[in-house]
Amino acid sequence: MTTTALPPAAQPGALMAAEIAEQPAAWRRLLVDGPAAGLDRAAALIRERAPRMVLLVARGTSDHAALYAKYLVEIEHGLPAGLVSPSTMTAYGARPDLRDVLMIGVSQSGGSPDLVRSLEVGRAQGALTVAVTNNAESAFAATAHAHVDVLAGPERAVAATKSYTSQLLALHLLLDRVRGGTGGAAAALPDLGEALLARDGEVAELAKRYRFAQRMLTTGRGYSYPTAREAALKLMETAYVSAQGFSGADLLHGPLALVEPQVPVLAVVADGIGGRAMEPVLAQLAERRADVFCVGTPAAVAGAAAGFTLPSGVPGELSPLLEILPFQMLARHVTVDRGGDPDAPRGLRKVTETL
Amino acid sequence: MTTTALPPAAQPGALMAAEIAEQPAAWRRLLVDGPAAGLDRAAALIRERAPRMVLLVARGTSDHAALYAKYLVEIEHGLPAGLVSPSTMTAYGARPDLRDVLMIGVSQSGGSPDLVRSLEVGRAQGALTVAVTNNAESAFAATAHAHVDVLAGPERAVAATKSYTSQLLALHLLLDRVRGGTGGAAAALPDLGEALLARDGEVAELAKRYRFAQRMLTTGRGYSYPTAREAALKLMETAYVSAQGFSGADLLHGPLALVEPQVPVLAVVADGIGGRAMEPVLAQLAERRADVFCVGTPAAVAGAAAGFTLPSGVPGELSPLLEILPFQMLARHVTVDRGGDPDAPRGLRKVTETL
Repeated sequence: MTTTALPPAAQPGALMAAEIAEQPAAWRRLLVDGPAAGLDRAAALIRERAPRMVLLVARGTSDHAALYAKYLVEIEHGLPAGLVSPSTMTAYGARPDLRDVLMIGVSQSGGSPDLVRSLEVGRAQGALTVAVTNNAESAFAATAHAHVDVLAGPERAVAATKSYTSQLLALHLLLDRVRGGTGGAAAALPDLGEALLARDGEVAELAKRYRFAQRMLTTGRGYSYPTAREAALKLMETAYVSAQGFSGADLLHGPLALVEPQVPVLAVVADGIGGRAMEPVLAQLAERRADVFCVGTPAAVAGAAAGFTLPSGVPGELSPLLEILPFQMLARHVTVDRGGDPDAPRGLRKVTETL
Repeated sequence: MTTTALPPAAQPGALMAAEIAEQPAAWRRLLVDGPAAGLDRAAALIRERAPRMVLLVARGTSDHAALYAKYLVEIEHGLPAGLVSPSTMTAYGARPDLRDVLMIGVSQSGGSPDLVRSLEVGRAQGALTVAVTNNAESAFAATAHAHVDVLAGPERAVAATKSYTSQLLALHLLLDRVRGGTGGAAAALPDLGEALLARDGEVAELAKRYRFAQRMLTTGRGYSYPTAREAALKLMETAYVSAQGFSGADLLHGPLALVEPQVPVLAVVADGIGGRAMEPVLAQLAERRADVFCVGTPAAVAGAAAGFTLPSGVPGELSPLLEILPFQMLARHVTVDRGGDPDAPRGLRKVTETL
């Protein structure tokens, strides 16, 4: 483990608040400078190679961006995709045959040795490798055939926020380019993000409701499942809430037993297929008298105990960039309300090095 | 959702206790009758097709058996593998190109519509499909090119126990046969399992220690990561403990902030590579003054606050069959001690149908 020295923050959560607020500007940067950031070159390499399948390598918050990309690959590209278990190639020394495989590594710092090693092995075994990072000088970037810089700017808060949504956008733009697109659908996101972030007072009010919650469940389906997972991680690492993220379907296979009126359920029910697929899950939750906080459509929010309405008309595959914002704000408010400092979670450092 | 009528149990947890105890006999059945149960035919089909990659489809407990198979495929076969997100093929209608792909579906009941549909789509898209179930009459079995019956016998407790370890064994034997083996390494497991299950009194004593724990973390690496996930699910669905399972490496990327002396950490540290890879994780946990319960080697147990020693000399890839047994017993004892009934978790039914 390496420690990156953090400057003392002016007040608890000031760094996290600043980085949450920077997100729309970071997205604009990527939309404008993306081609220079390596998107065009990486997309051209992928098109040339025409891979038969895609493997994703990541950990922590970046693993949720990788999970989002897995849905994009499976749904939009019709290719099988999988999340690599890095230990198979590092600890166990597996040397899979990776011809015809595209391996995409996602890491904010680009510094964790096991992820770098996984990309090295992937490249040596025949995969086309692409590194998506926030650090063009990283070993991760140097190892891959192509590097995409997510251009989020230096991230100093331990809890990743802007690097996460910039990873989502970079992965969307990369795969859109592979399919011959020009990223036009994403152009509206920065304005929508700004309008959403201006509603911080609304979230501050909602946070009071969860001030004393020790356990939470988060859930979503399809493109919104990564949001549920990332929301749980934010709440864990800043507010120390025992938050568990499940796909809506998996929630019904066992963890539903955890649901009781004292355990808030945070559900993502956005426009589109993933949101509609949550309907039977919401029905089961209602049957259990669950207290549901809903981030999503006006109808879904109206049926919940509390909620935050998302702008309408955003395609399902872009919605995750907006969905996570209220959860980032919620994690910060709940943590500060409880006397914690979201910028300095106990036991965590900005760069986690696992072998 | 469909309800399978359950007979009233003589006393709380009687069904679960009986099915836990049946495991070694179920393994013997599979070791002896496996060829008739479809192992030989499925293995021959896989060898003939020589797939380039493997996709696994499952939910709940069976998803942990699928995760175990993913490690086997990546490590022992040198093939890329991934866990399918069923919603991409059901809700989103993705039709991936699956030529050269082996798709293995794992389900106790073989009845969940989304899993059956995933296998149907997989088959239509060119995959070789194999269903691993405990129900030869299921739609799942009928859909696949080949069916492997795990021969666990009727499972009536809602919390799956014997079907899980029989799935692990069936997947091990299937893939071992694909590599030309004859399952010899597994022959010792039934006797080892019996000796381990005879130590129920030891677990009953340990359970007192966790009587009042509301939150737990479970962790393991490599082949033992599925054990950590399944242990967490058992504790969730029977004792309603908010238990979260993490790979040792992922634990360090964020969730480590949850670790405090009041939150027990249940770690699997078995003989072999996965166990050795836990050493830096255990060091971090010690630094946080975590209370670690260890299932594993004598040395690992000696260094922990409490533990359960596994027999030595079991290969890492077979260890998961034994590792989960003390967690199954622990979940049952903690639940009964708290006045609950592990055979009738609130809100759960034996067959969960998700769309």
